[in-house]
Amino acid sequence: MNFLEERILKDGIVKPGNVLKVDSFLNHQMDVELIDEIGREFHRRFKHKNITKVLTIEASGIGIACAVARCFGVPMVFAKKSKSINIDGDVYVAQVESFTHKTQNNVIVSKRFLGPDDHLLIIDDFLANGCALQGLISISENAGATVEGLGIVIEKGFQIGGRVIRNLGYHLESLAIIESMDGENGTLTFAPQNN
Amino acid sequence: MNFLEERILKDGIVKPGNVLKVDSFLNHQMDVELIDEIGREFHRRFKHKNITKVLTIEASGIGIACAVARCFGVPMVFAKKSKSINIDGDVYVAQVESFTHKTQNNVIVSKRFLGPDDHLLIIDDFLANGCALQGLISISENAGATVEGLGIVIEKGFQIGGRVIRNLGYHLESLAIIESMDGENGTLTFAPQNN
Repeated sequence: MNFLEERILKDGIVKPGNVLKVDSFLNHQMDVELIDEIGREFHRRFKHKNITKVLTIEASGIGIACAVARCFGVPMVFAKKSKSINIDGDVYVAQVESFTHKTQNNVIVSKRFLGPDDHLLIIDDFLANGCALQGLISISENAGATVEGLGIVIEKGFQIGGRVIRNLGYHLESLAIIESMDGENGTLTFAPQNN
Repeated sequence: MNFLEERILKDGIVKPGNVLKVDSFLNHQMDVELIDEIGREFHRRFKHKNITKVLTIEASGIGIACAVARCFGVPMVFAKKSKSINIDGDVYVAQVESFTHKTQNNVIVSKRFLGPDDHLLIIDDFLANGCALQGLISISENAGATVEGLGIVIEKGFQIGGRVIRNLGYHLESLAIIESMDGENGTLTFAPQNN
């Protein structure tokens, strides 16, 4: 079991409806030491790739993506979820559905920050049905950038997202893959990992 | 002129309507080295305080608050802007108006992550009319926590927010205070700083 799986077992809370709460250390309160360890682990797994930029989506991906970008010594770009008056009209757009909030969002990245020379590592905290990741991939492809890999902190392995993205041929690494959750007993199991 | 003011002059873009775009290094694309330097500077200015937690609000405050929290060796908590089904009902709430998006948001923090023992450093990227900061102060006071200080990356000194918060007796430090902006010529001036 790796450091993240241990932490999920220690501090994660399994609730009915396949909800895993990790808000005491990952996506509301953040344990910055743990975030840095996550950054180093993604660097270990992707350091053979020529990463020029880390891409994520607001909000909870930002702290993690910063930690990853620091390890690679590259800038981080976060996609925004709604059209701000401070964003130029010149943006890449994808439509993304939020599993958590049951809403549709426009996800946008300014064209100034992604282009054909970029080799991207896409980072996010959770992968369930994969809508957010698919939106980031779509934006990257529209920019002519190369998606070198995708790094997820926690993947819900029993939902479709991870399979879809691996089937599309992308290199996807998840630090913890949840195989099953039991909301009644508050327990979960992890899928075995090679890493 | 400090490192941040220099960077704003180099890469910031002044637009009509008192809009300063710093999205190439601060709040869309992030220069992680600069963010780390910002973290160290806030630590230098507040290290004599007994900070137990850093508090910010999603989204663009998160990366900066992580860098600050790392310097202090404490957790970071970010307030969320809408009620998620993954948040317990047991939350502190404040109403916040967004200058950028012209919307009202509920800002919430779980009661599990703020309490009377907390000595907070509140961090955000921008301060204009101060609604976001006032919401975070309100939440902190409701939690019985002590607001030891507030750290802002860029303050629009010609708007009311900074004056209100200093008048309330809080220790507010802004790394760059914009005295005036000229959207026609794309220029700005900074207020002098003692630090």
